[in-house]
Amino acid sequence: MLQDLSVDNGGLSFTPLVVVELASDTKEEAIAWLLNRMRDLQQNGGAELLVEQLGPGVWVQEKDNPNVFLVGASRQRLLSGAEDVGLFKEFSDGSMRVFTFANKHDFKDFKGDGDTFLSMAECQYIIKHELDTLRARDETHVPGYTQAKLYPGKSIVRRLQSKGILIQMFPLHEKEELKRLTFSWYKKVKLSFQPLDDIRHYYGEGLALYFGFLEYFTFALVPLALIGVPYYLFDWEDYDKYVVFAVFNLVWCTVILEFWKRCSASLAYCWGTLSRKKAFEEPRPGFHGVLGFNPVTGREEPLYPNVKRQLRIYFVSLPFVLLCLYGSLYVMMVYFQMEFWALSVHDEEPTFWTGILLFIPSIIYAVVIEALNLIYRYAAEFLTDWENHRLESSYQNHLVLKVLVFNFFNCFASLFYIAFIMQDMALLRQSLATLLITSQILNQFMEAFLPYWLQRRRNKKMIRKVQKRKTLEDKELPLVEQVRLEADMSTYLGTFDDYLELFLLFGYVSLFSCVYPLAAVLVVLNNITEVYSDAFKMCHVFKRPFSDPAGDIGVWQLAFEAMSVIAVVTNCALIGMSPQVKAYFPDSETQLILWIVAIEHVLLAFKFILTFLIPNVPKHIRVKLARLEFESLEALKKKKMLEASGLSKMAQ
Amino acid sequence: MLQDLSVDNGGLSFTPLVVVELASDTKEEAIAWLLNRMRDLQQNGGAELLVEQLGPGVWVQEKDNPNVFLVGASRQRLLSGAEDVGLFKEFSDGSMRVFTFANKHDFKDFKGDGDTFLSMAECQYIIKHELDTLRARDETHVPGYTQAKLYPGKSIVRRLQSKGILIQMFPLHEKEELKRLTFSWYKKVKLSFQPLDDIRHYYGEGLALYFGFLEYFTFALVPLALIGVPYYLFDWEDYDKYVVFAVFNLVWCTVILEFWKRCSASLAYCWGTLSRKKAFEEPRPGFHGVLGFNPVTGREEPLYPNVKRQLRIYFVSLPFVLLCLYGSLYVMMVYFQMEFWALSVHDEEPTFWTGILLFIPSIIYAVVIEALNLIYRYAAEFLTDWENHRLESSYQNHLVLKVLVFNFFNCFASLFYIAFIMQDMALLRQSLATLLITSQILNQFMEAFLPYWLQRRRNKKMIRKVQKRKTLEDKELPLVEQVRLEADMSTYLGTFDDYLELFLLFGYVSLFSCVYPLAAVLVVLNNITEVYSDAFKMCHVFKRPFSDPAGDIGVWQLAFEAMSVIAVVTNCALIGMSPQVKAYFPDSETQLILWIVAIEHVLLAFKFILTFLIPNVPKHIRVKLARLEFESLEALKKKKMLEASGLSKMAQ
Repeated sequence: MLQDLSVDNGGLSFTPLVVVELASDTKEEAIAWLLNRMRDLQQNGGAELLVEQLGPGVWVQEKDNPNVFLVGASRQRLLSGAEDVGLFKEFSDGSMRVFTFANKHDFKDFKGDGDTFLSMAECQYIIKHELDTLRARDETHVPGYTQAKLYPGKSIVRRLQSKGILIQMFPLHEKEELKRLTFSWYKKVKLSFQPLDDIRHYYGEGLALYFGFLEYFTFALVPLALIGVPYYLFDWEDYDKYVVFAVFNLVWCTVILEFWKRCSASLAYCWGTLSRKKAFEEPRPGFHGVLGFNPVTGREEPLYPNVKRQLRIYFVSLPFVLLCLYGSLYVMMVYFQMEFWALSVHDEEPTFWTGILLFIPSIIYAVVIEALNLIYRYAAEFLTDWENHRLESSYQNHLVLKVLVFNFFNCFASLFYIAFIMQDMALLRQSLATLLITSQILNQFMEAFLPYWLQRRRNKKMIRKVQKRKTLEDKELPLVEQVRLEADMSTYLGTFDDYLELFLLFGYVSLFSCVYPLAAVLVVLNNITEVYSDAFKMCHVFKRPFSDPAGDIGVWQLAFEAMSVIAVVTNCALIGMSPQVKAYFPDSETQLILWIVAIEHVLLAFKFILTFLIPNVPKHIRVKLARLEFESLEALKKKKMLEASGLSKMAQ
Repeated sequence: MLQDLSVDNGGLSFTPLVVVELASDTKEEAIAWLLNRMRDLQQNGGAELLVEQLGPGVWVQEKDNPNVFLVGASRQRLLSGAEDVGLFKEFSDGSMRVFTFANKHDFKDFKGDGDTFLSMAECQYIIKHELDTLRARDETHVPGYTQAKLYPGKSIVRRLQSKGILIQMFPLHEKEELKRLTFSWYKKVKLSFQPLDDIRHYYGEGLALYFGFLEYFTFALVPLALIGVPYYLFDWEDYDKYVVFAVFNLVWCTVILEFWKRCSASLAYCWGTLSRKKAFEEPRPGFHGVLGFNPVTGREEPLYPNVKRQLRIYFVSLPFVLLCLYGSLYVMMVYFQMEFWALSVHDEEPTFWTGILLFIPSIIYAVVIEALNLIYRYAAEFLTDWENHRLESSYQNHLVLKVLVFNFFNCFASLFYIAFIMQDMALLRQSLATLLITSQILNQFMEAFLPYWLQRRRNKKMIRKVQKRKTLEDKELPLVEQVRLEADMSTYLGTFDDYLELFLLFGYVSLFSCVYPLAAVLVVLNNITEVYSDAFKMCHVFKRPFSDPAGDIGVWQLAFEAMSVIAVVTNCALIGMSPQVKAYFPDSETQLILWIVAIEHVLLAFKFILTFLIPNVPKHIRVKLARLEFESLEALKKKKMLEASGLSKMAQ
């Protein structure tokens, strides 16, 4: 919501929405030029935004960066920007339609002059879009920086980012809104669903879909957890009973993933991102190459030969990934040696302490796995950056693929080894439990509490210093300090790590579920705390992220489905190895294996058929979408008919 | 091409394009009403077409139907119709763009007043579209037929069809064009590619894509055939050498199917059907239900509850299909008994004649299979009709599924039984060869030569009768007789049966390729004759079909891919059963099976990864499509900018 201009805006004549921070040593002429371009009218190629420099705070420090700018826009500008970005809004008839400035009054929530029509997150997204698409005209370089080359049509902000002149650009938090959201999200004592609509309202669709998926995933696991508990309580350690559990698990995983697509489509429809068209993708800020003509746009821009990129991928990145996998295998072998050593110590002299010692290798291994994942993550980012992908989407795909393959291997290789080479189900069970619990604890700590603690220290220091100079009436920081504080907060790097964590948890639940049914219980418990810690970190640890108008969870849907296919294979193999099933074929192992393989193939075929049979979008939404399309076709036909009759009248 | 009005039009004032035949006892008032609606101006809800009744021919017969009408349209009307159907044409810059009447002069082939701009097939398609979308206004029923109910927006032609008043509607052949096409297609002695562009020009995209696929498939099989020949010549009957062949075959099948997608996309792009939008689908002519409100269009139209349809599908169709499969299994068992009997006769007294007797059961079985397929085909059509699908696409999907499952089972069940239950490779080989050759011969006969012979008899009779009355100068029939002759020709029921035949051939090649490498040779030979017989039947046996603007081969791509997945499984199993591979694992059969299963999984995974890695559309076409999209986005932006500056000027 756009607040009216109020006193606590620190003397500004508009509501500040986005902060742009330039390097403190930026040359005056570059600043003047940039501000001019940002303020200039649209018809002159400007962004027509409102910009003010952030004044010195109550408590000025020498090292404070003076080049911090607050950006806002007039209501009119924001509404026309909403049309530019192709925002979908609820129409007066209840359907979602693309917003157009011309018939703004036909939209449901448009009241008066449209003050409350756009959420603050939407306004910030619009401003980001307008800044990103602010393009060079005839400038050949950024004034004062001859090496920061520009060419007609190049996004100015991207060039400033890639040259390090623009340090960061982030949307401001909204104290009152945040307080309300915080309360309804995780401070209420009452158990309830997450306020997904409010989350979307404040953080945008991408993040809301993540929390929606987290919630859906947790609820979907509850039946598995409920069935898992009696297995643990009644100590059904004969693995034959697990067969029933495994079959249930397999079907369940397939069904929940299929239904999530429907669920996600419903959410995305209500939020107006389901049928939203992707904007034309710009090159990434870091992309470099030799100037040439883009065959699509016909504009002059840097080009980088695809062959070179392929060479880098296949002759550097691929060998590197394989090397890392080998390293991970080596670490695994060291773990097994530790494990055997601990076992031999325990066998020699079984006491309480040697009993605990049995768990030590697994715990150390789990910590090492997390550390390796972290290090590899940085390496993968560096490599993917170096591969010089032109588009952000291509960069993301390559990064996700690299990280997924390694993390999958690193986390699950030891379990595969124990299950299928050593065939030691007791060890598998113990190892699975230790890995799962340790990685959960580590993750929660690394992800939310450590950054929060660091942040809190900084925060307190600043409040103390401000209080020294001025008595604060309501304990709230003035705008200037608030902006500087937020500028110092860590940046939220997107939902990648959060989805990755869920993906690995899903692996623990589905791959070896028939050996350790309690895994589902542990994951459900973890997910509940995860909701709280993720909510907490979004509200208090990180800068507010720009909203990301996502229509689905993207590549992660594919990743989860791939995992569930692998789960079918592993579970069938585990079932084939269970003593009960083996007892059915006392004479011939060949017969047993053939049966297991046949069942596995049937299950896989069934999975694919199910994917076809269950429509990805619920029927009521399909009807609504079809109606919209029908109406636009009819309108087009009517328009043509009118034109035709106009023509024939003219001819007469 | 639109021919100019010429003398041999039989006194008509326009070029006749489409023939509409009504029942001979149609009431006068219905005819008058229909003609009026067809001729009426578009702004009055008419189709604005030119219609004339077909006069009596030179030789009038009493049983000749008088209610045959010739339909045409003015050039202006056809061009505006081209915009209605969303035709893609080559623009002056070489890209394919949707045709608009307003800037018709910017299209490459638009010369003068656009006489030769649209092909005759396109004109006929446009007229069909205009007739199909001729809708009832306030009529409650067809005049004279109170039981033929109408409601506002109902397609008149569909109602007339479903009530049997309209017998048929077909486009006319174009003698000159056809002669030229026939020559370049199959009368030339020189071996060459098929004239796909000309085929598309005359028959439309759907059929041209079929012939394109047939040609591609044939060429793709040539390497397999070439490798297969030495196997046959040098009598490499030890099945171990077949392992190499099978692996090559598997990879090859995957690769050719992936590359066909690219090939098909290239063709469809050049023909303007790649990015063509599907028109809003109307209910099928046969669809019936209780009047209600369509949730999408808001119009009153018959609705049929989905639950009822599902009940029919699951409680009648499904059991019927299963019963048919059982019947097919029974026939197979009878075949095996015959086979054993023949074998025992041969073993008792091996002479030349008993040697031939060995092949008799397979031949009889092949004939029975073809007969069963044919009967089942009619039953499947009846059942799918009775399921009362609302849309043609849904009807087609259910029909294809039913027919595919049965045909697959019927043709391959005996081979599976011989291969995996009896494990008799010699018999498999013999059975495969007999089935393949017999079914090929039968198919060619049933499909082209039998109908041609019947047609020829009718044809000759008419020519003789006409010659009795009048001496023909150039041996050409006059228009009236030509129309009546074409009206009597059989109707081409679409590419379904042709694709089905290819699908089964593909199955013979890929499923058991490692046992009988000569299969590829036979299929290549068959395909070459198939091109000729199919071309022949299209030109001389059937009525000209309406063109069908297809962008790909649709559900058949999926069917072929499913077959290639099954082929991976069967070939891996056959490899596992080969003596050479068994020799590697002399001690443990379990080891062997595990290895085979592992290899199979790797191959399947590789197939899926390959599907992702090979882009479905070639790069140069993707660039062209992206450029079009970019340009339309830019144009939209410019338009908005102009509007905005106009607004701001008005505000000043």
